[in-house]
Amino acid sequence: VTRIALDAMGGDFAPSAPVSGALRALRELDEQHVVQLVGRADDLERELAAHGDIAARQRHRIGIVDAPDVVTMSDRPTAVLRGKPNNSMAVGLRLHADGRSDAFVSAGNTGAQMAASAMLLKLHPGLTRPAIATVFPTAGRSLVFLDAGANVDCSARELVQFAWLGATYAETVLRRDNPRIGLLSIGEESEKGNAVVKEANALFRAAGFNFVGNVEGRDIPRGEGAAGRIDVVVCDGFVGNAILKFYEAVMPMLLAILRRHAGVNESHVSEALAEFDKSRYGAAPLLGVRGVSMICHGNSDPNAVAVAIKDAVQAAESGMNEMMGSRLAAVAGEAQRTPNHSAA
Amino acid sequence: VTRIALDAMGGDFAPSAPVSGALRALRELDEQHVVQLVGRADDLERELAAHGDIAARQRHRIGIVDAPDVVTMSDRPTAVLRGKPNNSMAVGLRLHADGRSDAFVSAGNTGAQMAASAMLLKLHPGLTRPAIATVFPTAGRSLVFLDAGANVDCSARELVQFAWLGATYAETVLRRDNPRIGLLSIGEESEKGNAVVKEANALFRAAGFNFVGNVEGRDIPRGEGAAGRIDVVVCDGFVGNAILKFYEAVMPMLLAILRRHAGVNESHVSEALAEFDKSRYGAAPLLGVRGVSMICHGNSDPNAVAVAIKDAVQAAESGMNEMMGSRLAAVAGEAQRTPNHSAA
Repeated sequence: VTRIALDAMGGDFAPSAPVSGALRALRELDEQHVVQLVGRADDLERELAAHGDIAARQRHRIGIVDAPDVVTMSDRPTAVLRGKPNNSMAVGLRLHADGRSDAFVSAGNTGAQMAASAMLLKLHPGLTRPAIATVFPTAGRSLVFLDAGANVDCSARELVQFAWLGATYAETVLRRDNPRIGLLSIGEESEKGNAVVKEANALFRAAGFNFVGNVEGRDIPRGEGAAGRIDVVVCDGFVGNAILKFYEAVMPMLLAILRRHAGVNESHVSEALAEFDKSRYGAAPLLGVRGVSMICHGNSDPNAVAVAIKDAVQAAESGMNEMMGSRLAAVAGEAQRTPNHSAA
Repeated sequence: VTRIALDAMGGDFAPSAPVSGALRALRELDEQHVVQLVGRADDLERELAAHGDIAARQRHRIGIVDAPDVVTMSDRPTAVLRGKPNNSMAVGLRLHADGRSDAFVSAGNTGAQMAASAMLLKLHPGLTRPAIATVFPTAGRSLVFLDAGANVDCSARELVQFAWLGATYAETVLRRDNPRIGLLSIGEESEKGNAVVKEANALFRAAGFNFVGNVEGRDIPRGEGAAGRIDVVVCDGFVGNAILKFYEAVMPMLLAILRRHAGVNESHVSEALAEFDKSRYGAAPLLGVRGVSMICHGNSDPNAVAVAIKDAVQAAESGMNEMMGSRLAAVAGEAQRTPNHSAA
């Protein structure tokens, strides 16, 4: 049995979209998967009742975990745990931390989810920060892109940590063999980049993962750079967030332009671009925490929630968390045994 | 008469593409516009002769300026001026600096063009660095995006300088009234961003241009953010270069996906997206130098060169250079009269 704790109060359309999304995911998943709806029990029972028979048929695979406190968008992320300890996010993450759940999914406040995940699940050894990863569609295979916005000012050592996180995710969840890591820069040559990236390039070459060199912005949609195929692209969260948001907005803009053009069959174009549909790539894993914490867009619809639940199942069953723990422990041990020649 | 000095030896397809591009531009421009082809005179005469009557009809509007030294991609940008003083880039820029030409266009080494432009044309008062601007197509009107890669590590004060450069370009060349300036960040709130952007936000609010606030990656393709329409987006050259290259690669990737889909009429899609054709937005002005220095892609074809020449004419005739000089002198004078409360 794999149990997914779902923050049923998180997101712009809660609790309706999470509950509908859970029902959709359960219909598509095997019988041994269950969803724990976390939120105000009364509201959730009422929401389930509104789905009638559809909900009744899945009721044996749905748990309801009461979380009476409700967090709003105006609550400060860091204050949430202190002021409203029984909010749905905290209750869901505690379920997971206590081993009563195998993964956590939320469309609530991203900052709150990051802070609460780090505090309640804890970080793997040797890490200073968690990172948000996204799986990017490309012309070839998808790639793991991180950090997508958790960390705006990063040191070169933090970029190395992100590379290990991305590599382990690609290996376990995407089943890539010896994943190929690229460092985002403004030229493929090692000496290109800003100060942090130049330092990171040297650390990446010595780190022990499969570093294929610097990659450029153009290599992301292509899925490959000068050194060939890329499985993971590493950058700081400022650049990552800017590129990710840019990407999400390019598609609607292009569709709007195509729509204005008489000769273009809109439904064919939409169909062809379905693989870029945001909701199909809507859930971003928060990497570095002990466990599985999946971040959904605040505006997630039931389909996006269902995709996120299935992604959470896949991550929970992939062995990602165990692999990350043992690998980072080994890297941290290695660092202690060798002189830290990069410290000031 | 407006005279455009064209580096006829610069770019992957030189001298063929520059010469063909010059002929194409001359056919489309008014009679009073002339092009000065800068390069090895013998090669250029031969190239023109190959165009037969087409070239002969424009010959009275074409100057040939001999530049016997040839720079290769392996020459270091900074060494070019010392080791090969009579290369086409240096000769062309000197023509412009001496007032014997009104603008300079090149598809040669971008780093060399930046260094040579700054050295030979000099910077406007108060500037520490030039910036590369690009004109971005959006769902609405185009916007000026800078820095696109000239400066990888920028201070908050340099971002302020870029804002003035972009504002003046938008006002004079794009004819935008009181251009609306956005600062690229990861949230619209003033306190969002990395350390440099947070400091820049405070400086932008006090600077005197029309600052509409932080904008996000998603606002670039939309051409507008939470505070409405945007004419100029300012960021450092690392982020700018990553986003620009990313954007350039998204379109071919989408077309490849659409092409694989049976129901999509490829020629209609290509036609609808023609406004995104790279060569139509191929020339990037190097802003901050005294004069007009237009940077083309190394792989520019004759069409891209022709567009760049017409862009150079427009910039030269717009009064951009004079406006930039007087505005930056005023800003620099203002800074001297008021206490520098941001210095450490």
